[in-house]
Amino acid sequence: MKWVRRWFIAGLLIAGTWAISAGLAEAADALPSWNEGPAKAAIVRFVDATARAGSPEFVAPAQRIAVFDNDGTLWAEQPMYFQLLFVLDRVKALAPQHPEWQTREPFASILKGDVRAALAGGGRALGELMIATHAGTTTEEFARIVGDWIATSKHPVTGRPYTEMVYQPMLELLAYLRASGFKTYIVSGGGIEFMRPWSERVYGVPPEQVIGSSIQTKFELRDGKPVLVRLPEINFIDDGPGKPVGIQMHIGRRPLAAFGNSDGDLQMLQWTAAGAGPRFCLYVHHTDAEREWAYDRASSIGRLDKGIEEAKARGWTVVDMKADWKRVFAFEQK
Amino acid sequence: MKWVRRWFIAGLLIAGTWAISAGLAEAADALPSWNEGPAKAAIVRFVDATARAGSPEFVAPAQRIAVFDNDGTLWAEQPMYFQLLFVLDRVKALAPQHPEWQTREPFASILKGDVRAALAGGGRALGELMIATHAGTTTEEFARIVGDWIATSKHPVTGRPYTEMVYQPMLELLAYLRASGFKTYIVSGGGIEFMRPWSERVYGVPPEQVIGSSIQTKFELRDGKPVLVRLPEINFIDDGPGKPVGIQMHIGRRPLAAFGNSDGDLQMLQWTAAGAGPRFCLYVHHTDAEREWAYDRASSIGRLDKGIEEAKARGWTVVDMKADWKRVFAFEQK
Repeated sequence: MKWVRRWFIAGLLIAGTWAISAGLAEAADALPSWNEGPAKAAIVRFVDATARAGSPEFVAPAQRIAVFDNDGTLWAEQPMYFQLLFVLDRVKALAPQHPEWQTREPFASILKGDVRAALAGGGRALGELMIATHAGTTTEEFARIVGDWIATSKHPVTGRPYTEMVYQPMLELLAYLRASGFKTYIVSGGGIEFMRPWSERVYGVPPEQVIGSSIQTKFELRDGKPVLVRLPEINFIDDGPGKPVGIQMHIGRRPLAAFGNSDGDLQMLQWTAAGAGPRFCLYVHHTDAEREWAYDRASSIGRLDKGIEEAKARGWTVVDMKADWKRVFAFEQK
Repeated sequence: MKWVRRWFIAGLLIAGTWAISAGLAEAADALPSWNEGPAKAAIVRFVDATARAGSPEFVAPAQRIAVFDNDGTLWAEQPMYFQLLFVLDRVKALAPQHPEWQTREPFASILKGDVRAALAGGGRALGELMIATHAGTTTEEFARIVGDWIATSKHPVTGRPYTEMVYQPMLELLAYLRASGFKTYIVSGGGIEFMRPWSERVYGVPPEQVIGSSIQTKFELRDGKPVLVRLPEINFIDDGPGKPVGIQMHIGRRPLAAFGNSDGDLQMLQWTAAGAGPRFCLYVHHTDAEREWAYDRASSIGRLDKGIEEAKARGWTVVDMKADWKRVFAFEQK
């Protein structure tokens, strides 16, 4: 039976070596798309302090909640929010069923290709567009529509699928946090049911960890079959002061770490920072006009003005995309 | 180095034996408070079919979602919903700050000990009572109030803490499902923030897996400190047709299994049953006037009328508490 023993021991040695090298790799290489610098160092320091057994600031796994904004934090948001590009595509797809749209604003302008004119109608025009493209279906039909769109549509500037317009350093950060026992949530102003059909595949965030804006739904029996119908009424706006409200509603615990890129994330970061013990707040600052876009205080999309002041005053981490990220998108040629 | 090899082999053998006996114990003893019978058999069959690797009906762990009503399903709901007993206690506790309540209904009747008269005002009276006792605090203050109450109050009939008024067979079922890779959720008509302060300790269900009714909250900075203030406005009623809506909002997946005890759970069970593949629906039927209470079609609390008909017609599992449960509460003398 000597060979059995040898076999066992060889197996144990291999497993042990593997475990040790995996541990080292985790510390050294979890964030390969991040340049060495203060942002990466702050992240690693926080994760080590809260997740390493024996650390004086150790936090129980159940309390390790990390919340991420989506637009501009996990994926791009230029030249406009991707959900708005979905709206425009849906208006075109639905137009044959709505001949009246040819002459009715804001639809008529979109069908002529003049988005700016369509959106000149402000919140009311946008509301009409959202309802026409987001309500009236069942939840299952809507998930299918979004799934089809995300699988086939391309970003208007890069020509890449939208799911490739995600930031590689942030994907690494999500995975690093999860490997360190954190539960990662998305907390977005975007539609909750617009994100769920692909959030698990793209970000590793399952539907039950997606928080977002929503319209109302209603339970109905249709020919004895239960459905949830999406109604033309707003239920919840998960933006600005709505983000802590959404976090409390869905999670019921205060996050340990929060990641955003705009003033719409400020209250989420404030709420996170105000908890007892170690907390971590981070802003992604869009500074790279070459590999991505550069915008902040004056932008109508993802404006970062008050937030960057508060980040400076409170010592939150600010990621300078140009300096801190080795690459922005996975598809970049290095 | 012979002793090292022996040591390794002994360890492997012990670990192996332990794993095998743990597997057997799980199947045999996971539900010790359940009598052998059709209800227990149906549960074990479903869990085996969906969670055992190699089963033709195997379901991936991420899809193993089980939802539980609370009042009358996990803990008792007689002589009235426990949250209503909390309301009565809170009115008494707050009365010194509200001298006007001595003469104003429905408060005056409660302070005289006449609950029936107080509730004669119907939904409007109840709404007033809910707002007076549930709104106006921050979320953290409310959690503290609930936590103090649940730690110190006693059930009016049994004299037991409310957290002992939970059904031992259902605690075993929750644990059995979790051990089989299910994620267990509470989906209750009761207040979401009324359950979260104790749901993890009592049921093993963390706050992010509690779904319930809610009032609106608002983010505020008070002296620079962020708080969430509970407002006197209903946000969501998680009952009847609201339960599938709440499930979709919080989980975004259809449950694999649903557990209830009243007509208020019917739509949740319908929604669950309508999914593709194996699904499991169960009603707890209150049939034990001696160890608990006996009530169904004619009860104003936890009415079970349409639900029991549908359960019969569809072959859902119905638990006869008297026949199926070896004991109801952990504190019972055997």
